[in-house]
Amino acid sequence: MQTLKVNLGDRSYPIYVGSAILARAGEFLAQAGLRGKVAVVTNPTVAQLYLDPVHKALANSGFDAIPILVPDGEEHKSVASLQMIYDRLIAERFERKSCVLALGGGVVGDLAGFAAATYLRGIPYVQVPTTLLAQVDSSVGGKTGVNHAHGKNLIGAFCQPKLVLIAVTVLQTLPQRELVAGLAEVIKYGVIEDPALFALLEEKIDQLIQLDDELLIQTISTCCAIKAKVVEADEREDDYRAVLNFGHTIGHALEAVTGYTQFLHGEAVGVGMVKAAALSAQQGFCDQGSLDRVVGLIKQAGLPTEIPGNVSLPGLIQAMEVDKKAAGGKIKFVMCAGLGKTRFHWLSPSEILNALSA
Amino acid sequence: MQTLKVNLGDRSYPIYVGSAILARAGEFLAQAGLRGKVAVVTNPTVAQLYLDPVHKALANSGFDAIPILVPDGEEHKSVASLQMIYDRLIAERFERKSCVLALGGGVVGDLAGFAAATYLRGIPYVQVPTTLLAQVDSSVGGKTGVNHAHGKNLIGAFCQPKLVLIAVTVLQTLPQRELVAGLAEVIKYGVIEDPALFALLEEKIDQLIQLDDELLIQTISTCCAIKAKVVEADEREDDYRAVLNFGHTIGHALEAVTGYTQFLHGEAVGVGMVKAAALSAQQGFCDQGSLDRVVGLIKQAGLPTEIPGNVSLPGLIQAMEVDKKAAGGKIKFVMCAGLGKTRFHWLSPSEILNALSA
Repeated sequence: MQTLKVNLGDRSYPIYVGSAILARAGEFLAQAGLRGKVAVVTNPTVAQLYLDPVHKALANSGFDAIPILVPDGEEHKSVASLQMIYDRLIAERFERKSCVLALGGGVVGDLAGFAAATYLRGIPYVQVPTTLLAQVDSSVGGKTGVNHAHGKNLIGAFCQPKLVLIAVTVLQTLPQRELVAGLAEVIKYGVIEDPALFALLEEKIDQLIQLDDELLIQTISTCCAIKAKVVEADEREDDYRAVLNFGHTIGHALEAVTGYTQFLHGEAVGVGMVKAAALSAQQGFCDQGSLDRVVGLIKQAGLPTEIPGNVSLPGLIQAMEVDKKAAGGKIKFVMCAGLGKTRFHWLSPSEILNALSA
Repeated sequence: MQTLKVNLGDRSYPIYVGSAILARAGEFLAQAGLRGKVAVVTNPTVAQLYLDPVHKALANSGFDAIPILVPDGEEHKSVASLQMIYDRLIAERFERKSCVLALGGGVVGDLAGFAAATYLRGIPYVQVPTTLLAQVDSSVGGKTGVNHAHGKNLIGAFCQPKLVLIAVTVLQTLPQRELVAGLAEVIKYGVIEDPALFALLEEKIDQLIQLDDELLIQTISTCCAIKAKVVEADEREDDYRAVLNFGHTIGHALEAVTGYTQFLHGEAVGVGMVKAAALSAQQGFCDQGSLDRVVGLIKQAGLPTEIPGNVSLPGLIQAMEVDKKAAGGKIKFVMCAGLGKTRFHWLSPSEILNALSA
């Protein structure tokens, strides 16, 4: 097992990455100073697989676990689901010392985290991510929130968890398509911060897809350590944290204009990274060699690399303008400035349109 | 004009208390580093009186002010109003550097503050309170939120404003009943922290009700300074900040069981303070003399002091149990331990019922 720490003063917390650690959930929660009632927010698919072991682990350490099920799917990361969770927490008399445990992927984690951040003006919560994407990205760093009809994550809060518990064994039940989608974020860390991770992925991505436990623990820990470092430097994304949005400016917009049904988040980020790398090369931030390696690895992972023909480019750019990454009419891009290096760059809607049409 | 500061590291902010300072709103916002779009959240009554001067003051300093009107009344401090504000902010393309200005009483301040705290995971906001209650209490300290059908402020966030602008002249248009309700919170500061303020009120409360400008500035500044000190010591109400809840345990429950229509918040707190002081004397925390002075001043202010006959005591206690002040089946009370002193004390539902029935 690997233990990492996110250092944020009185909001610091540990991340445990290991193979058979779900059964120790109660122990870790107790160590983190939690006690009493735990709302286990999850979805029916994950509940069928992992609610029993988590429930047992919590009960064994004296916790009173209460499951709250949210339907599967990004469309349920909504104000309606949030109100359902509030209603349940109130009905079950959750108090300020009670806590929430998010057992699931990014939808469950963001939703449950935001519910915890805003119930009684904030109660503690724990992330137990069950997708690769949530394990390397959304479970760490305290971004919580729900979607709005006009865009993803438009409503939310920065609120750090008390603990992140990453069991790589749960990836064995993850559909292949979701596993591959998660690799997009893994690749992203290589591109923005870590050429050695990028090279490792070029060599061993097939082994990772075959779920080699040791390699998973090593890779996920490396990703979480990078994320922790970035969040420690800029918790509220005033500036530097935005490097994590590499590939996300176009990725988020692509998800929005396709109604969150055609692409998994990681798949949209795959396309977004290819386009962001191409923009970077076009604008002189990186050379053709880096671009080729980025596109090559994304293809090798089995991720999509093209904006589908049915997507209108002006519509896509309009979606970027309502995103959080817009300011003063320009849109902020993370450019690849060679593997492991980034630069921020603001582009006008017409510049993006020209580049994507080229 | 008095200038105070709430010292909370990088979340510190100034409070300006003066007579003719609405016209300088733009200047103060610019000084606080704000610029661009400002959503002025207000209600129709306040808008008719003060939207024009505030709008002009903002425009004069180069701000682009966009009014967002919420209907009058506690019942509109709701998730529905929140969604309406989000929709408007999105439609007006508010970005992370844009800001929200709450122009109104506690409902507007709490609602607009929570909208700002959660739109794009948090944009800056400014409090311009127009009721006495909001000026001495809810505009300072960063408690934001909305009500739930089962209780007040059950959904919310701690999020500090960038600036609080208190123009005492706006109290001239405040209905007498609301002015008196605000005095409940003023009296509270005397009871919990400041015997000199309490004595001043005993001597000059009539002059205060007649809106003597100098006395208002002095009194409101004293209240804000106490609130700032408490918030600086315990921003997230882990412990000490709860002293501000003196009279609120019963007060909140009384508002809830009467559907937020029979009592103004301050009126319910008036009753709550009388009952909390009586409980304090019963349980030996303070002497009869202190109790008499507390009850005397609350009566002198013209506030109600009794739980109406149509309110069921068991129902009232049940409402306390779903409040944030409950834990482990007991309910937290702030006891008066003599004027200017407090003690926390946990009571079971049956102990409270016995005391209130006595």
